[in-house]
Amino acid sequence: MKSLKIREGVDQPPSINPDVFASGVKKRKKYSVNEYVKGIRDGNRAILSQAITLVESSLPDHKSAARSIIEKCLPESSTSVRIGITGVPGAGKSTFIETFGLYAVSRGRKVAVLAIDPSSQQSKGSILGDKTRMEKLGNSPDAFIRPSPSAGTLGGVARKTRETIILCEAAGFDTIIVETVGVGQSETAVRSMVDFFLLLMLTGTGDEIQGIKRGIMEMADAIAINKADGQNRLAAETSRIMFQNALSLFPAGRSGWKPLALTCSALDGTGIKEIWDMIAGYVKFTEGTGYFEEMRKQQSVVRMHDVITDSLGSLFYSDERVKALIPVLEKELGKGSVTSYRAAEILLDKYFKK
Amino acid sequence: MKSLKIREGVDQPPSINPDVFASGVKKRKKYSVNEYVKGIRDGNRAILSQAITLVESSLPDHKSAARSIIEKCLPESSTSVRIGITGVPGAGKSTFIETFGLYAVSRGRKVAVLAIDPSSQQSKGSILGDKTRMEKLGNSPDAFIRPSPSAGTLGGVARKTRETIILCEAAGFDTIIVETVGVGQSETAVRSMVDFFLLLMLTGTGDEIQGIKRGIMEMADAIAINKADGQNRLAAETSRIMFQNALSLFPAGRSGWKPLALTCSALDGTGIKEIWDMIAGYVKFTEGTGYFEEMRKQQSVVRMHDVITDSLGSLFYSDERVKALIPVLEKELGKGSVTSYRAAEILLDKYFKK
Repeated sequence: MKSLKIREGVDQPPSINPDVFASGVKKRKKYSVNEYVKGIRDGNRAILSQAITLVESSLPDHKSAARSIIEKCLPESSTSVRIGITGVPGAGKSTFIETFGLYAVSRGRKVAVLAIDPSSQQSKGSILGDKTRMEKLGNSPDAFIRPSPSAGTLGGVARKTRETIILCEAAGFDTIIVETVGVGQSETAVRSMVDFFLLLMLTGTGDEIQGIKRGIMEMADAIAINKADGQNRLAAETSRIMFQNALSLFPAGRSGWKPLALTCSALDGTGIKEIWDMIAGYVKFTEGTGYFEEMRKQQSVVRMHDVITDSLGSLFYSDERVKALIPVLEKELGKGSVTSYRAAEILLDKYFKK
Repeated sequence: MKSLKIREGVDQPPSINPDVFASGVKKRKKYSVNEYVKGIRDGNRAILSQAITLVESSLPDHKSAARSIIEKCLPESSTSVRIGITGVPGAGKSTFIETFGLYAVSRGRKVAVLAIDPSSQQSKGSILGDKTRMEKLGNSPDAFIRPSPSAGTLGGVARKTRETIILCEAAGFDTIIVETVGVGQSETAVRSMVDFFLLLMLTGTGDEIQGIKRGIMEMADAIAINKADGQNRLAAETSRIMFQNALSLFPAGRSGWKPLALTCSALDGTGIKEIWDMIAGYVKFTEGTGYFEEMRKQQSVVRMHDVITDSLGSLFYSDERVKALIPVLEKELGKGSVTSYRAAEILLDKYFKK
C-alpha cells in the first residue's frame, strides 16, 4: 500500500520540537536509546511521553533516535487489542471512550487512548485532543491519553500514531483505542492500524446513513448507536435494526466476521459490556481463523511502506542541491517562467544525478 | 483583468453528453497530446472528460501523456475563480451547489464542479459523486460536473483534482467549484487549491460549533448558514450572529479578508446572489492587495511538490530491484524475522546503491 501522504503547501516541518518550548520553562532530561527502552518497558509514563514526543519530532536526530527505540520495542508477540473508534460529529465519541475505557480498566485492562486529528493546520494545535475531555479516564492509573500529534500531514500523523501504538504496547498497555475525529479520510488510515473498527452513530433514520459515508460503513466491524437512553431508547432500537439491515447489504469482508449493530449509552453505561464482549468475541473468532495474525502482519507491511515514503521525502528534501535549488525554482514559478511540472523535473534530475 | 465580470455572448461548446463515453460500451478514440490540447481548448467536453480520465489513471503511459497535456494547458493568466465548498453532513451541499451553480450560469459564467471524496476505498466507487445529485446543473450546457476520482489516497485524489482544475479552465470554465465531502482532512487539501473557501452550516446553537472542527472554521473565508427558509429563518439569523462572533475570535488570515457569516436557502434561492457578490468582492479585494496572485503562485508551488512526491514514490516502486525484493521482505515480515524498519532500510539501500 502506498502512503497517504500529502504535502500541504510549502510549509517545511517545524525545525524545533514545539513541545520542548510549549511548556516554556524546564528543559527535559536527555536519555539514551537504551534508557528510553528500559523506561518504557518498566511502564514509566514520563519516559513513555517523552519517547512519543521524539516520535512526533521532525528533527533528524530525534527521528533516528525514535526509530531505534521503536525497533527495540517492536513486539515479538503482542497480546493487545487495537480498537479504532470513529463517528459523526456529536455522536459522543469522548464520552463513549471515557465510559468504555473505564469499563475496560475495571476488567483489568490497561488502556491507551490515541487520537488522530490532522485537521487543525493553522493553529498547529489539537483542539479536541485535550485530556480534559476524558477527565475520569485520564485520572486512572491504568489509562494513558495522548492527544493527536500537533502538526503535520495525515500521512505523517498516521505514521506517528502507528509508532505510538508500539511504544504504548511496550509500556504494558494492552487495550489501544485510536480515536479519529470527523468522518473523512483519516478512517482509512486508522482502519489500517487497528484490529477492530467501531463506528459510533446516533439515533435517526435514513438521513444519518447519508451523512455517514458508505466507505466508512464498509470498514466498520460494528456500529454502536450511542445515546440509547431515556426517551431515546426505542428510536435507538429502530436505528439499530436499520443499520443492521444496511450492514447486511455489504459483501462480507475478508475476516469472515459479520458486522453487528448494537445500541449503547455512554451516559448510563447500558450496552458497554456488550460491546466489550463483542470485541472479545471478534478477537477470539479472528484468532481462530488466523485472520487476526494476518492483519497484524499486514500492519507491519504498511509500517514498512510508511517508513519508505517518509524516508524518500526526507532524503530528497534534505539533499543540499535540492535545498539550494528550491527557492530559485519557487521564485521562477512565481514569475511564471517555468511550469510546476518542469520545476519538479529539474529538481528530480538534479537529485538523481549523483 | 481577473474580476468576476459577466461574460457577454458566451461561445457555446458542443454539448456532448459525457455519459455516452462513460458507459464503456464503445471503444474510445485515441488522441495525440496535441489533439487533446486542441480539443480541450475548443471546449470539447468529450475530449475534456477523456483527458481527465487520463489524469486519474495510474498507468505510466497515461501519466506521462496526462502531464504533457496539463503542461500545455497551464494558464498564462487565468480569469477563473476557484471556490472550495465544504460542510457538515446534511448541510445540503449538493442542493446548494446546484442552486449556486445555476445562479452563476445565469450570470454568464461557465461552471465546473469537481468533488473530492477519497473515502470509499473498499468499493472503489464514489458514492456521492453521482451526477444525478445535481440534475438541473448537470443538464446545463454551461456546466460540467465531474465526480471524485474513484480510487486512491487523499494525496492522489488531491493531485488529480488540482490537475483537473487546470484542464477545466483550459476548456473555458471560469468558475471552478471544488466540493469536499465530510469534515475531515480533505479540507486542508482543498484549501490549498482554491481561491475562496466556503463552509456550509445548518441552523443551530453551540453544539454545531463543536461538530465542525476549529481547524475547518479557521480556513473558511465565509460561513453560509443554509436552509434559512420558512420557520427556520429566525433561528438561522441567530446562528449567523453566533458564527460571525466565533469567526471574529480567530486571528486575521494572511489575506487581510475578514471572514463573513451569511444565511441562505438553496431551496428558495434567498441569499445566493449575496454569496456570489461576496465572493466577487473577495476576488476584487485580494486582487487589489496582490494576495490573489500570491495564492495562485503558491498553488503552483504546491503542485510542484505534488509532482515530486508522486514521482519519488513511482520511481522507487517501479525500480526492478525494489520490485523483486518487496515480496521477499513482506514474507520475512510475516514470519517476523525482520522488523518493518529494517525491511525499509534494506529496500532503500538497494534502491540508492546504483
